[in-house]
Amino acid sequence: MSYNTFGHVFRVTTWGESHGPALGCTVDGCPPNVPLDEAAIQHWLDRRKPGQNRYTTQRREADAVRILSGVFEGMTTGTPIQLVIENTDQRSKDYGEIAETFRPGHADIAYWQKYGIRDYRGGGRSSARETAARVAAGGVARAALAALAPGLAITGYMTRIGTHGIEGARDMDQIDRNPFWVPSAAAAESWGAYLDELRKSGNSVGAEIEVTATGVPAGLGAPVYAKLDTDIAAALMSINAVKGVEIGEGMGAAALTGEENADEIFLGNDGTPVYASNHAGGILGGISTGQPVVARFAVKPTSSILKPRASITKSGKLTEVVTKGRHDPCVGIRAVPVAEAMIACVLLDHLLLDRAQTGGVRGPIG
Amino acid sequence: MSYNTFGHVFRVTTWGESHGPALGCTVDGCPPNVPLDEAAIQHWLDRRKPGQNRYTTQRREADAVRILSGVFEGMTTGTPIQLVIENTDQRSKDYGEIAETFRPGHADIAYWQKYGIRDYRGGGRSSARETAARVAAGGVARAALAALAPGLAITGYMTRIGTHGIEGARDMDQIDRNPFWVPSAAAAESWGAYLDELRKSGNSVGAEIEVTATGVPAGLGAPVYAKLDTDIAAALMSINAVKGVEIGEGMGAAALTGEENADEIFLGNDGTPVYASNHAGGILGGISTGQPVVARFAVKPTSSILKPRASITKSGKLTEVVTKGRHDPCVGIRAVPVAEAMIACVLLDHLLLDRAQTGGVRGPIG
Amino acid sequence: MSYNTFGHVFRVTTWGESHGPALGCTVDGCPPNVPLDEAAIQHWLDRRKPGQNRYTTQRREADAVRILSGVFEGMTTGTPIQLVIENTDQRSKDYGEIAETFRPGHADIAYWQKYGIRDYRGGGRSSARETAARVAAGGVARAALAALAPGLAITGYMTRIGTHGIEGARDMDQIDRNPFWVPSAAAAESWGAYLDELRKSGNSVGAEIEVTATGVPAGLGAPVYAKLDTDIAAALMSINAVKGVEIGEGMGAAALTGEENADEIFLGNDGTPVYASNHAGGILGGISTGQPVVARFAVKPTSSILKPRASITKSGKLTEVVTKGRHDPCVGIRAVPVAEAMIACVLLDHLLLDRAQTGGVRGPIG
Amino acid sequence: MSYNTFGHVFRVTTWGESHGPALGCTVDGCPPNVPLDEAAIQHWLDRRKPGQNRYTTQRREADAVRILSGVFEGMTTGTPIQLVIENTDQRSKDYGEIAETFRPGHADIAYWQKYGIRDYRGGGRSSARETAARVAAGGVARAALAALAPGLAITGYMTRIGTHGIEGARDMDQIDRNPFWVPSAAAAESWGAYLDELRKSGNSVGAEIEVTATGVPAGLGAPVYAKLDTDIAAALMSINAVKGVEIGEGMGAAALTGEENADEIFLGNDGTPVYASNHAGGILGGISTGQPVVARFAVKPTSSILKPRASITKSGKLTEVVTKGRHDPCVGIRAVPVAEAMIACVLLDHLLLDRAQTGGVRGPIG
Repeated sequence: MSYNTFGHVFRVTTWGESHGPALGCTVDGCPPNVPLDEAAIQHWLDRRKPGQNRYTTQRREADAVRILSGVFEGMTTGTPIQLVIENTDQRSKDYGEIAETFRPGHADIAYWQKYGIRDYRGGGRSSARETAARVAAGGVARAALAALAPGLAITGYMTRIGTHGIEGARDMDQIDRNPFWVPSAAAAESWGAYLDELRKSGNSVGAEIEVTATGVPAGLGAPVYAKLDTDIAAALMSINAVKGVEIGEGMGAAALTGEENADEIFLGNDGTPVYASNHAGGILGGISTGQPVVARFAVKPTSSILKPRASITKSGKLTEVVTKGRHDPCVGIRAVPVAEAMIACVLLDHLLLDRAQTGGVRGPIG
Repeated sequence: MSYNTFGHVFRVTTWGESHGPALGCTVDGCPPNVPLDEAAIQHWLDRRKPGQNRYTTQRREADAVRILSGVFEGMTTGTPIQLVIENTDQRSKDYGEIAETFRPGHADIAYWQKYGIRDYRGGGRSSARETAARVAAGGVARAALAALAPGLAITGYMTRIGTHGIEGARDMDQIDRNPFWVPSAAAAESWGAYLDELRKSGNSVGAEIEVTATGVPAGLGAPVYAKLDTDIAAALMSINAVKGVEIGEGMGAAALTGEENADEIFLGNDGTPVYASNHAGGILGGISTGQPVVARFAVKPTSSILKPRASITKSGKLTEVVTKGRHDPCVGIRAVPVAEAMIACVLLDHLLLDRAQTGGVRGPIG
Repeated sequence: MSYNTFGHVFRVTTWGESHGPALGCTVDGCPPNVPLDEAAIQHWLDRRKPGQNRYTTQRREADAVRILSGVFEGMTTGTPIQLVIENTDQRSKDYGEIAETFRPGHADIAYWQKYGIRDYRGGGRSSARETAARVAAGGVARAALAALAPGLAITGYMTRIGTHGIEGARDMDQIDRNPFWVPSAAAAESWGAYLDELRKSGNSVGAEIEVTATGVPAGLGAPVYAKLDTDIAAALMSINAVKGVEIGEGMGAAALTGEENADEIFLGNDGTPVYASNHAGGILGGISTGQPVVARFAVKPTSSILKPRASITKSGKLTEVVTKGRHDPCVGIRAVPVAEAMIACVLLDHLLLDRAQTGGVRGPIG
Repeated sequence: MSYNTFGHVFRVTTWGESHGPALGCTVDGCPPNVPLDEAAIQHWLDRRKPGQNRYTTQRREADAVRILSGVFEGMTTGTPIQLVIENTDQRSKDYGEIAETFRPGHADIAYWQKYGIRDYRGGGRSSARETAARVAAGGVARAALAALAPGLAITGYMTRIGTHGIEGARDMDQIDRNPFWVPSAAAAESWGAYLDELRKSGNSVGAEIEVTATGVPAGLGAPVYAKLDTDIAAALMSINAVKGVEIGEGMGAAALTGEENADEIFLGNDGTPVYASNHAGGILGGISTGQPVVARFAVKPTSSILKPRASITKSGKLTEVVTKGRHDPCVGIRAVPVAEAMIACVLLDHLLLDRAQTGGVRGPIG
């Protein structure tokens, strides 16, 4: 996990900037003989694609992925898979006036200080466009997981947008029926009104997203510095604008007693462990238990807003910034498929890593 | 960052179990010519040492560190530094009755499922004793930081224990004056009473800890998968019992608008950027800005409690678990020096990594 | 250095197969603000390009490189550099008859056994076409070295082809004047006649190549498992068909006494060390001394020959193989620019790594 | 493979200097449930132990290994294994006079230039004593290989000492019957006389060692930069004083034609491939074929000799060096068990890595 690569044995390196000719990723370590084609990857990219509704950036990108290597006659070969997505709608002129000015809350100033150079046509490498490559990599991971861990399912959904959470019970069937992937028809409606208002006022807002993975085999995670939760935390925190990551009870665990937090264990009909609760979020000591893995994270509001904010220029002058252009009022919305992709990559990585460590054999119970 | 090693170029590998003869760490990548001796490391270990007050485990460990390599005549040589701490007070008999039973909320069952073998005399590798090695490694990192980034200071403190937070203003001078490292004399008192009660009832409780690093140079962090916040998230999440990690606003960022969250930028007298606020926690786009780096995390309550909980045995029988022995009623207390150590390691790692990437040169402003 | 990536902090991941749509590499860790454009990389690719004379494969590839990321307005930005080369002349029909048969001495059978799938249209990932991506990466490394270590020069040349070595003194000015990059006009002539004969008879032949790097700063190399010679050995051995690697005296060191082998040290006019000889090949204890770094390696003869050889088929039948198609009679010739590129990458990697370790400061003499 | 660690998933980090209190290694990634105790590791250390005959250094070291972690009740647990060997016979006074002077051909000057500090009591980290830790790690690897690849056997032996090779046929039964591990009784005798003479004259000499591994499963090796031969080359080149590495035909491959070099393939009675020859040394395209893996390397003569050689001091003065003390006249002798250990580590690493990549499934033939 260094610079632009993540993963231990399933290794993904993303490359590309928001306003260059293309972006993509090199996926190394995918097992051979996994069925894979461009359509399988495109399916996931289409979920992240901008411009699908009024709540995401109006930049129009086809986000069409091409496989340049590593697949032969519809099957992976065990060699690196190169995925390329062309940038087709980068309008540099929109960004012209911010070339010299640092947007408050944006990575502009940090990149400038570190590198002394940045692609001032846009966010460059810090743009959320980089996440398209992650979603493509996640498509590869999903294909391999389908082959190696057939019952495994990964679902992301929003649980908060600004001051609005979900009231009442969650209805997971609603997730694919609204632009927020929120598991509640009522929330979808009130969130829409709330975001419309924010968008019109030129403001933006943060969000909280949760991802649940069911069917995760017990025994994934490599103590003590490649724990499954450690790698999930890193994977989610590496997504643009993320400021917090939680597993299971998350930050709320600080308020619990040991008696409350202990997930009592019983026996299922087949003699396997059954847990009475899942405060742990499916992970104990950094290793999956077989319970659903539950991760949650917070995305800060987009820093590119129409509201004027005080800032400085590269040449050291005070100024005021108003960012025009086509930006997501809530970048958290499109973070849902990105997070799913990251979780898919981490789980596959650990599945392969566990084969190396233990050969996939499990300590018996009973 | 694989298995038992963390860091990119300042690499720490910890080893050892709670009930083996010793534990320690191999620290590779420390720059040469850094003044270092055992006393400098012991200073930090003494802060984490158990048995110092009634709020931590009564296990009595000297936690005396020995340097076996990498230091010559009081200076680091650039070669691996081996640090060893002997286990002197492991009483296996305390643990005998849990050899066959899995403690709810504990890593016992996960280790068994993964490895099919575990050192049943205690928590083995999943025990909090492993963190002594981290603190030792942190001592090395602190010594190197003192040489390379003289103004840098790292301070950890508790901000919550169970249902008790801090009321009123924080008084950082109080941190070293109470057993909780809490920046409030009033909180220290009420927390003591609260924890006494919990301890006597055989229960345990979670905690929230915050670490602030001031004097961190701008430009640390390697986008996009070795971001400074990514590595901090991984470092903190890898600590035993941690369930959530936050940078700056953390999970609270989900509730903010872009207008609220933007840290406005002004100019200091010396022409460097001055920020009106620090919602970002000192990190933008994964790169430090020069503002204080602020990280926060939640520790779940110790799973070893006297309260009976339902569980199963290795042979697949239902049972009830009551864990005797000497356990921390709030393992979060001793997580404070551990977290400081992890942050020290991450900051040094990124300082060295940045020298590789940019030679330490910064893009000028003004 | 895992799977398809090499390097510690200057990391190159190559991807692509001989008969896919394209191949290329992701170069991560190049410092920012290095002047770079496609022409600078193309210069080195043109040296490796096939079909330039009758001694290399007649496959006609433009090997035109495109930079898709990491460069802005002619300067590197510190972000990953994606280089793509399209395959334009892959004629799969040439290879049709070997789809089911394993060529003796070729990686066909090993890939099949490992992966259970292979791109039977050609050598796939094991083809020498993969080395085009290495040469492109070497172009990036050369550009960075030009900026960071201006006096450094890397020169590769052949020293043996089959039974023919070099007689008489070497004339380095000849290297660029003959198709073998051999530092001898006489050798170039006799080698040409020798190889013509072998080529016409449908045979192939091995070669020995030497690379000398002058102007390498003292102090590069990270003991004890990232030694400079260790990494050079790995880099050269990873090139297709290489079977031996030597530093300085190489295998001949086995026959020397300590008295003969000791490179006596004197003082130059400027007080720096001057060596009376260079048996060490510029590296002691894995660290560069400031002397020229000298590495040598042997390339086995191309396994694709017109001479019939006994083999088996995938379905387990005995057969005889004659490989038609367009193959290099001496694949060692085109290994010269490839080896130069690998040495460039290793030297840059260690230059950057040394900045992390020591800040580039050197222990003074005198 | 960075700094002091080698291996991809079976990772060995060695630490310690020749004149510190101890040296050892951290072995991470050993599978669980492998039978292991100190005696099993000591067996291999005893082969490398100095002072066993008049041809190796007279330093008397027990080289007694202690296991500090990772083993419970005689079985590995899957957690890091810490192995420690105390230094008991370091006589610093022997080295006193060379504290300020650089030995020609020795790493002294290189370490000084790079680090600006070195343990002048001896070779420090560059001493051959570091290889004791490798042999200990190799003992762990052997134990795991015995469990995972029962038929695998690794044998090292010398094939040259200075001007003396082996005449006549090799007799592998002789290897354990002479101090040179040479497979020839006649060679053992003549080599003894030759080395006695060199030793008495205060000189030293180089050596060539070969290691053969039989029973290596087909399919090990991860193209294209973690090839099996790439990793073997790195592992052997990282041993002190090694200047050349060969696989199969090695440097001699440069002189062969394709017709000569092609290892023709036939079918065994069980339908598996049988090769008529083994020019490839058991590796094609970086992947093992199932044939014996054959690696060879050259060790330069010890640089610490009684013969006076010209050199300089740290303060920049010309001088003459005569190295007294207890040094191996042929350090290559003790390199035999070291090389076996490195090959054991590499093979286990790739066995585990292949489980991650392919699950250990092989493409069928027939």
